Amino acid sequence: MQVEGVAYRAIQLTDDGWSVEVIDQTLLPHDFRLRRLESLADAARAIRDMIVRGAPLIGATAAYGLCLGLRQDASDAGLAKTVEDLSATRPTAVNLRWALERMLKVVKPLESQRRVEAAYAEAERICDEDVAANSALGEHGLSLLRRLTASKREEEPLQILTHCNAGWLATVDWGTALAPIYKAHNAGLPVHVWVDETRPRNQGASLTAWELANHGVPHTVIVDNAGGHLMQQGRIDCCIVGSDRTTARGDVCNKIGTYLKALAAKDNHVPFYAALPSSTIDFTLRDGVAEIPIEERAGDEVTHLTGVADDGTVRRVRVTPEASPVANPAFDVTPARLLTALITERGDCEASEEAIANLFPERATSRKR
Amino acid sequence: MQVEGVAYRAIQLTDDGWSVEVIDQTLLPHDFRLRRLESLADAARAIRDMIVRGAPLIGATAAYGLCLGLRQDASDAGLAKTVEDLSATRPTAVNLRWALERMLKVVKPLESQRRVEAAYAEAERICDEDVAANSALGEHGLSLLRRLTASKREEEPLQILTHCNAGWLATVDWGTALAPIYKAHNAGLPVHVWVDETRPRNQGASLTAWELANHGVPHTVIVDNAGGHLMQQGRIDCCIVGSDRTTARGDVCNKIGTYLKALAAKDNHVPFYAALPSSTIDFTLRDGVAEIPIEERAGDEVTHLTGVADDGTVRRVRVTPEASPVANPAFDVTPARLLTALITERGDCEASEEAIANLFPERATSRKR
Repeated sequence: MQVEGVAYRAIQLTDDGWSVEVIDQTLLPHDFRLRRLESLADAARAIRDMIVRGAPLIGATAAYGLCLGLRQDASDAGLAKTVEDLSATRPTAVNLRWALERMLKVVKPLESQRRVEAAYAEAERICDEDVAANSALGEHGLSLLRRLTASKREEEPLQILTHCNAGWLATVDWGTALAPIYKAHNAGLPVHVWVDETRPRNQGASLTAWELANHGVPHTVIVDNAGGHLMQQGRIDCCIVGSDRTTARGDVCNKIGTYLKALAAKDNHVPFYAALPSSTIDFTLRDGVAEIPIEERAGDEVTHLTGVADDGTVRRVRVTPEASPVANPAFDVTPARLLTALITERGDCEASEEAIANLFPERATSRKR
Repeated sequence: MQVEGVAYRAIQLTDDGWSVEVIDQTLLPHDFRLRRLESLADAARAIRDMIVRGAPLIGATAAYGLCLGLRQDASDAGLAKTVEDLSATRPTAVNLRWALERMLKVVKPLESQRRVEAAYAEAERICDEDVAANSALGEHGLSLLRRLTASKREEEPLQILTHCNAGWLATVDWGTALAPIYKAHNAGLPVHVWVDETRPRNQGASLTAWELANHGVPHTVIVDNAGGHLMQQGRIDCCIVGSDRTTARGDVCNKIGTYLKALAAKDNHVPFYAALPSSTIDFTLRDGVAEIPIEERAGDEVTHLTGVADDGTVRRVRVTPEASPVANPAFDVTPARLLTALITERGDCEASEEAIANLFPERATSRKR
């Protein structure tokens, strides 16, 4: 997508053909800066410190991280250490393991001197497939949005709420939850996006808003508390969120607070969609609330916030009393019963074991073997 | 309650017998500073700029604001202007109108030279009654907490979630939602409070956490997004919130985001209580969602945050992109169906028209006349 008139992907090979460039998402929306990843440590740090975030982009970064690790040491031991270091960065992210397993399947059988080239080719395929999947997902989502628009008065924009950032910055390009919105906007379908701030890391206020502003999509930032009220007042036509991990029956593990919006949508008969590439589906899990371990992140994400001071400097400030402890669970699980549909690269389906298995029979079946 | 070992009320007459002292709540938790109100304009500004906030404290401040207005001009015209200026400060606050009407009833029939003294006496009564009501409410809430504690394993603290600040800073003393918690803590009943940050103004992170820390009540600050997940995980035994305005059938208008927590409580069978002095009940209203106008506050509450920078200075920083508009509805309505009970100064009752009328027959009846 475009930034200041230049086309970017959220991750891309540089001209040297081996190092990788990502956007430092911890600095947005106040500063747009690229980071060059030149080593396994760089890649691991980028994932761990959330310089890159979002399930698909984490997967793509892990894939290139494995390439960088193999450049340093392509032996079996080097490969094992690379996988170990990358796996440890974000325990909840299923795409991380998915990408590493896929890379392993390609490079492990090879002699060590052939691994690097094969790894880069596979990482590139992962990225290209992600872009194609999100574009397809966006088209399927667009069909849903067109149907919702049909029941609106002409000229009234479709009011869509989204939580966190499942935009192109969370993927290689297009995004997941935002892909249908970009497709709609590009197709001339009037849309307006209510952007949840998404505390504690403010990915909505800082990343989704920044993306939409750059692409010219009308939007309004609200605090996470406001969405229920807007739905009560009939001011939201649908919600679209992403998914970090989806169970076989359609429970969606996504950014903390997603569950609350899904409850409000249900209570107000507002359609609630999760947009997800099928790589986030974990067919080994059924009951998300019981089975998915939730990452507890550092407390300073809650106690401190970063923004631009009146003098233009970027400042980190503490907002809680020093004497008060904090807790910081990073995700929650939205049970399938609260979801109207899942939107995937193969189309949309009910959030149920049967419907998901019908859409991805080859993966659902392989699990039962 | 205590601040650094000294007993305070959130509003009190100073030693000069006419000016009024309040705590500047916009500076907490980073700075504890008193503000002296010496004029009608001071009082109106204190309410409008949220130097004082919380339904009962707004009422008490309006009462003393009327005293200060009459000191400047006790004529009928002066009285009318005073009431007009104070009424305009916070449109949603029912206690504001309640206190002004009560003051008017006392001072309006009097000759102008007798009004000031009578006004101060009535304002003092309003404050003392508020303290007594909150203390009684706290005792009734304590009974509920004791019943919930009975089903816990010994030594395990009762886990209570609260939203916004309905503590002593929101009233003259004791608080509403926090009164049962202070009573429980004082009585040796082990409690732990999950404190919702409460964006956009962070009254939870800055006021409730500060109050609880000063009083020694165990607590943990969480972002507003986290409460649903904690309830899903069985880590919350009950929720207690305040109410800015309560309808005859028990719909509760409270800080934005309350509704989302009530939905999560219902979904997880967690008791959800609203603690409110009966002065917040508006017997002229039934359907809160349809009938209560919701205050839309300034956008900079969403775009900007105040905290302490690493160098110790208090800084205001912008967290959203400059190109992104924001919306800021300040309250939402929790329908009675989501409330387990209302806790009032006369006891607890079901959130229903019948139960409320039974508890306050004199006020419910007067409405029907």
